[in-house]
Amino acid sequence: MSPIAKEGSTSGDRGYAKTSLNTVNRYRGRGQYEYQQVYPIVDEAPILHVAFHSSPDQDDFAFPVILPMLGCTGNFEEEQNNDGRRAIYLHGYVSSRIMRLTRKNTTSDDDAGAEPSGIPVCVSATLMDGIVLALTPNHHSCNYRSAVAFGHAQVVEDEPERLWAMELITNNLVPDRWQHTRYPNKTELKSTGILRIDIHSASAKVRSGTTGEAREDLRDEAMRRKVWAGVVPSRMVYGTPLPAPTNMFPGTPEYIED
Amino acid sequence: MSPIAKEGSTSGDRGYAKTSLNTVNRYRGRGQYEYQQVYPIVDEAPILHVAFHSSPDQDDFAFPVILPMLGCTGNFEEEQNNDGRRAIYLHGYVSSRIMRLTRKNTTSDDDAGAEPSGIPVCVSATLMDGIVLALTPNHHSCNYRSAVAFGHAQVVEDEPERLWAMELITNNLVPDRWQHTRYPNKTELKSTGILRIDIHSASAKVRSGTTGEAREDLRDEAMRRKVWAGVVPSRMVYGTPLPAPTNMFPGTPEYIED
Repeated sequence: MSPIAKEGSTSGDRGYAKTSLNTVNRYRGRGQYEYQQVYPIVDEAPILHVAFHSSPDQDDFAFPVILPMLGCTGNFEEEQNNDGRRAIYLHGYVSSRIMRLTRKNTTSDDDAGAEPSGIPVCVSATLMDGIVLALTPNHHSCNYRSAVAFGHAQVVEDEPERLWAMELITNNLVPDRWQHTRYPNKTELKSTGILRIDIHSASAKVRSGTTGEAREDLRDEAMRRKVWAGVVPSRMVYGTPLPAPTNMFPGTPEYIED
Repeated sequence: MSPIAKEGSTSGDRGYAKTSLNTVNRYRGRGQYEYQQVYPIVDEAPILHVAFHSSPDQDDFAFPVILPMLGCTGNFEEEQNNDGRRAIYLHGYVSSRIMRLTRKNTTSDDDAGAEPSGIPVCVSATLMDGIVLALTPNHHSCNYRSAVAFGHAQVVEDEPERLWAMELITNNLVPDRWQHTRYPNKTELKSTGILRIDIHSASAKVRSGTTGEAREDLRDEAMRRKVWAGVVPSRMVYGTPLPAPTNMFPGTPEYIED
């Protein structure tokens, strides 16, 4: 683990310290900082959005870049280090831009101390639970559970940790999938890159419930009879599994039906 | 429009030029650059992820920040400028961090020329269409339609453009909603900030269809009989609208049922 991995936590508790980086300012009541409030959102989001500086060495290359990636939270050192704190693991093609950039900026454990190893990233997970339609469009909103995490991405080179993370990410997408597949060969294992983000700071923001209306609007019954107000719930659903033309497995296995 | 707004387009066509910023390198065949391939993905995504440098003046503040925001594409000057090119409009609370930061870095039309006005952002839209389960986990993938756009965000101050954008964003979320609500008053209009991103560069990346398998795996029929391979489709669905406790509109209006 990098030396900064613990910096964001307040000693003894199980959450992230509020700093200018992670504090929810707008609708403060929606902000959450406990590990157990942040991690389930990251793990439930099928796709994570990861932002990085495209080319930190070049000033003229001004744009941040967002990549949609697959990943989830996990703690490889759980036995020694069981305070509930986890990292985020992402997987991707080994020679993709983010992997190359991270590898270039990763220093070994021995060099650590001067500069934080890896590249600074932001990971965002957003689950949309509904559209909130108030009487006036300026009070429209969404119900959502979102999490944001900041940390340095590092390429994982340790083989046991790499394998463990591949299994973790696969089973986070479809529970029990890993053990029901053909075990990857050496070339395949090499072609998959694993990034670990030791979370420096994180928070969640959650909105649920019904509309929030202006007080004056609630006094205007004539208007309220004309404008529908309420929530249209939304969720991600999974349809009937479609076997590939090359599939030879009879039927659909139970762990996928679930 | 900012002076760089047209830079990314190749003259005469209706798409974005391929540059190092927007070119899809991994699975090149999935890359798309036409306006009409990029914009529908941005408009269909209920939530856009927007990345910016949290504090461009401070070197020690290294992390990019991602915000989930509501927005869509549009061209306010369509009558004069009907080449099919659009900007992205986002809305948010007027004093949120991204609004304040953008306002601070927006120069008026008269100052333009030296430095691009506004802050550099990346907007990402991702629609997940399915989980692709190949025989081996290293060939697992997702079906998706994703778009990424780069440009400078600017605060829109022009009142007609602001109003037009609020209506555009509201109706993009729920078609016909704007005209069925209580028209916002002056204070409400002022409290909503509108950002316009003149797109400098953009691209889409789409994966569809079934699994892609290694050739050796297809020769291994014993293994194929043991591992299910195929696609689990996924999509966002909207449930039965739930009226707010304060709702007085009888039933559910047709434009919401749809």
